[in-house]
Amino acid sequence: MISPRKTLHFSPPQWVIFGFIIFIIIGTILLALPQASADGESVGFLDALFMAVSAVCVTGLAVLEPGGDFSAFGQVIIMVLVQLGGLGFMVFGVTVAILVGKVMGMKYRLLLQPTTNTFSARGIIRLAMTILLLALSLEAITAIILTIRWSSELGWAEAAYFALFHSVMAFNNAGFTLFDNSMENYIGDPVVNLSLSVLFIVGGLGFMVLVDLFRKRSLRRLSLHSKLVLVTSAILLVGGSFFLFIVGLFNPATEGLSLSERLWSAYFQSATARSAGFNTFDISSMLVASQFFIIVLMFIGASTGGTGGGIKTNTFAILVLATINTFRSGHQVHAFHRKIALETVMRALAVVVSSLAWIIGATLLLTITEDIYNVHFLTTLFDVVSAFSTAGLSMGLTEELSPIGKVIMMITMFVGRLGPLTLAYALTYKQSPSKISYPEDKVLIG
Amino acid sequence: MISPRKTLHFSPPQWVIFGFIIFIIIGTILLALPQASADGESVGFLDALFMAVSAVCVTGLAVLEPGGDFSAFGQVIIMVLVQLGGLGFMVFGVTVAILVGKVMGMKYRLLLQPTTNTFSARGIIRLAMTILLLALSLEAITAIILTIRWSSELGWAEAAYFALFHSVMAFNNAGFTLFDNSMENYIGDPVVNLSLSVLFIVGGLGFMVLVDLFRKRSLRRLSLHSKLVLVTSAILLVGGSFFLFIVGLFNPATEGLSLSERLWSAYFQSATARSAGFNTFDISSMLVASQFFIIVLMFIGASTGGTGGGIKTNTFAILVLATINTFRSGHQVHAFHRKIALETVMRALAVVVSSLAWIIGATLLLTITEDIYNVHFLTTLFDVVSAFSTAGLSMGLTEELSPIGKVIMMITMFVGRLGPLTLAYALTYKQSPSKISYPEDKVLIG
Ligand SMILES: [K+]
Ligand SMILES: [K+]
Repeated sequence: MISPRKTLHFSPPQWVIFGFIIFIIIGTILLALPQASADGESVGFLDALFMAVSAVCVTGLAVLEPGGDFSAFGQVIIMVLVQLGGLGFMVFGVTVAILVGKVMGMKYRLLLQPTTNTFSARGIIRLAMTILLLALSLEAITAIILTIRWSSELGWAEAAYFALFHSVMAFNNAGFTLFDNSMENYIGDPVVNLSLSVLFIVGGLGFMVLVDLFRKRSLRRLSLHSKLVLVTSAILLVGGSFFLFIVGLFNPATEGLSLSERLWSAYFQSATARSAGFNTFDISSMLVASQFFIIVLMFIGASTGGTGGGIKTNTFAILVLATINTFRSGHQVHAFHRKIALETVMRALAVVVSSLAWIIGATLLLTITEDIYNVHFLTTLFDVVSAFSTAGLSMGLTEELSPIGKVIMMITMFVGRLGPLTLAYALTYKQSPSKISYPEDKVLIG
Repeated sequence: MISPRKTLHFSPPQWVIFGFIIFIIIGTILLALPQASADGESVGFLDALFMAVSAVCVTGLAVLEPGGDFSAFGQVIIMVLVQLGGLGFMVFGVTVAILVGKVMGMKYRLLLQPTTNTFSARGIIRLAMTILLLALSLEAITAIILTIRWSSELGWAEAAYFALFHSVMAFNNAGFTLFDNSMENYIGDPVVNLSLSVLFIVGGLGFMVLVDLFRKRSLRRLSLHSKLVLVTSAILLVGGSFFLFIVGLFNPATEGLSLSERLWSAYFQSATARSAGFNTFDISSMLVASQFFIIVLMFIGASTGGTGGGIKTNTFAILVLATINTFRSGHQVHAFHRKIALETVMRALAVVVSSLAWIIGATLLLTITEDIYNVHFLTTLFDVVSAFSTAGLSMGLTEELSPIGKVIMMITMFVGRLGPLTLAYALTYKQSPSKISYPEDKVLIG
């Protein structure tokens, strides 16, 4: 006999998936209302669903223009879905998972809390509230700055509305914009460049790193996870800017740009590729070298437990460290004088293998479903990686998707946002505690 | 004081690299001779070097046509280089490494001999001779079959010469042909399809699997390594044929083909992608879906210790098994009732990460060096993966390479043939024995 209580007993990953699906369903219904559409006529079920998935998964890939095709009501719904799927998931999803994990066994604690294992349940909730307040304050401050910046061209009311919308998008690493060319008008604008990028970089660092920074206030005393995330993010940001700047010099499409515009553009595109999704330079006008490079950056993405996607900087760092260790015939993977558990490395491997498998599979399918005779391969690969990494940048495939192509991309965003590990654990969850005990410092994967 | 004996003390991987470089140098000098060229004028240093590297690395990518640009003398040199770099490396390289490994410590034995650890030194040499004889017999038998097949169209003398050349190429998984359109004239020919593919499939299985099959003569008693190689190869061959057959149905370029030609073509292209390099259907006339799929097959490649390239079927199998194990929250990676050592999984990880890194880096470089303004991305990626996996198939980039592009591709072939692990061990070799002992059954990686 199965008791009703038992059948409703979800594991934390199952709760997360359940929550995402509920938000997507409600979002779809609301976005399909005639009131949500700019012309008063429903945008239709499939496109409403696509936009809801893209919003809840904080991707920003769009089959319709948030600015042109939706009413203010529709735009507010998108904004709320993004805030729930990004900041909401970051603060509540992770907190609940940690708390439930404390009750339910080692597994989720290993997965989620390298820096929080000394906290009481009450302490964690207080911390979550602190992060939530911090995030909302950051969004508010940025909104004020952007209101001032845009007041002269848009007027105060519209400037404030645009500022709020894009601040929410930025912190949540969702690439929707109300402009019809993203941020391309502001390629050399320090205010727009800095305010947006600070938000999406902070949002992408993840709950645990923010908690760690908040508590320790000293770089040296940070956890291994935080150190790896911060160092990897910095290297990718600087290295990526440098590469895009150099290649950009050879691009005829950049001819009219000043040196400062080139520098801002290289910085912004390097930062946005790792999951924010805004752009100040048209991606399809870039040279192929830069486009392919951005695919790699998108694939790596932001960091675990944040509003960004990709395999994550921490996963990437573990893969690199494990590879170097094997090449040196070393006996343990280590960084910053800490050993990294083999289980962590195995998770990194599982994440990268399954992510590659999904991207390859989805790309193969789309090369068949989307105009099999006239496929522009790089465009397809770019948009698939963008969807999986919830980056939101596009080379143009997304706006021309067939219905089946939309379904493939929606599932790709969903799988990419939740991560292969979360999905796998949701499907295979058993309540058995781990048989192994780990003395090492832990790094998050996935 | 350093004794002269000490300075000449190479580790096994260093000997392998040294041997490859010597063969390449001698090959380059001979191929650059006016006598090696079809028109009596030297083909030039750089192209001679490229062809020598491609031959010794059993790739088959060609900046010149072996049939049209080289004399019979030049073609025989290519044939000898291929035989040395393929069969020679397979038999002598591996044997020497095992023998030296027995003397020098655990490391190379772990790397090289899952099935040979019960052999005495004399036993290994006898086995190597057996494999050598088996390979030469297979080449000879195939040469006789192809001589008969081609005698009517080429005459007996030329048929015999062509048959020998292509048999040597096939066993060594080197894709050079004397025809100007590879094997496209024989798309539906069972004799050519079967005789060549049996050779390159057997050559690609690797020394250890052949030894194992030769000794055990029973599928069930094979080592874990052999089972993984055989099962993975079979799945890839059948699955690959199926995919290419289905997608081929939608390709207007296949319109004139009969069903049997379609089936042979799907089988042959599926088999050849995993490192042989011949083709019976023009790769550039395929649909993008098939081209991308072939890139994936090339990347996986053949098996460790054979004449093929890629990350290897065994590495691929380990990655898949480790990923599934992690998804299931399993405590050990296993297959066929055998546990797989974590060190093996770590090696697989190092191979796939470094291979991806090399391919991404080389592709990025070539998108810059080869006509930065007009890059056909898929063509570049295809030829880079083909070079790294020593597959030898081309979508056209190779024949149009700039001098710097040729250098990038040559280094890519060299790194791909020797494998990242061999190169890394050559650079970091220390004579310290491993501190860990492994009770599990081993699987080769690299
Ligand atoms: K995004
Ligand atoms: K080959």
